[in-house]
Amino acid sequence: MYIGDADRIPARPVEVEGAKCVKKQILVGPKEGWDGWVMRRFTLGGDGRTPEHSHPWPHIAYVLQGEGSVMLQGEEYPIGEGSVAYVPDGAVHQFKNRKSSEMTFLCIVPERGEDL
Amino acid sequence: MYIGDADRIPARPVEVEGAKCVKKQILVGPKEGWDGWVMRRFTLGGDGRTPEHSHPWPHIAYVLQGEGSVMLQGEEYPIGEGSVAYVPDGAVHQFKNRKSSEMTFLCIVPERGEDL
Repeated sequence: MYIGDADRIPARPVEVEGAKCVKKQILVGPKEGWDGWVMRRFTLGGDGRTPEHSHPWPHIAYVLQGEGSVMLQGEEYPIGEGSVAYVPDGAVHQFKNRKSSEMTFLCIVPERGEDL
Repeated sequence: MYIGDADRIPARPVEVEGAKCVKKQILVGPKEGWDGWVMRRFTLGGDGRTPEHSHPWPHIAYVLQGEGSVMLQGEEYPIGEGSVAYVPDGAVHQFKNRKSSEMTFLCIVPERGEDL
């Protein structure tokens, strides 16, 4: 069993091409017992964005705070606190913060996609 | 792909023995594309609690709002916004709201355990 506090888990900058003001925390994954999956928390700074990309695994997302949009297959959808998304394998996607304040969201991914 | 708003998803009362003031929403599961897993959002009213129970599947939880505790194998742990938990298969557990205001948390479960 594991109980943690996300606010005390180190946040690492995401420095891949196309990312802007993105930090990532690993909340629960195989190390904590969840075989095969990882729950991460992303923080986008003002006007931050994740890279526009696709990969052969899904994302399951829940927006905790802020206002922005998610681009899915070329279409932009507004998102905010309480928005949920299922991004299927292979879909081109990008999360964007549309405000100057932070936007945070949970993003669950299969273990094989955690690093990417 | 799927994009939804948790605040617009119907909340159903959980009426199993031992539950008090518990409502559940199904946010993302197999119907939305996530094979084998379901993300739910639980709302505990003032002094609400989930039943004390165990089952042969895990929970992955993230506290969105409120203050309370989680009992795991007989020990009580304080939880609040940003708390995360991995409850392994077979562990006796119970979520409790310790305030008069609502407590909400995400709880991910394998599909086979969604109804229980």
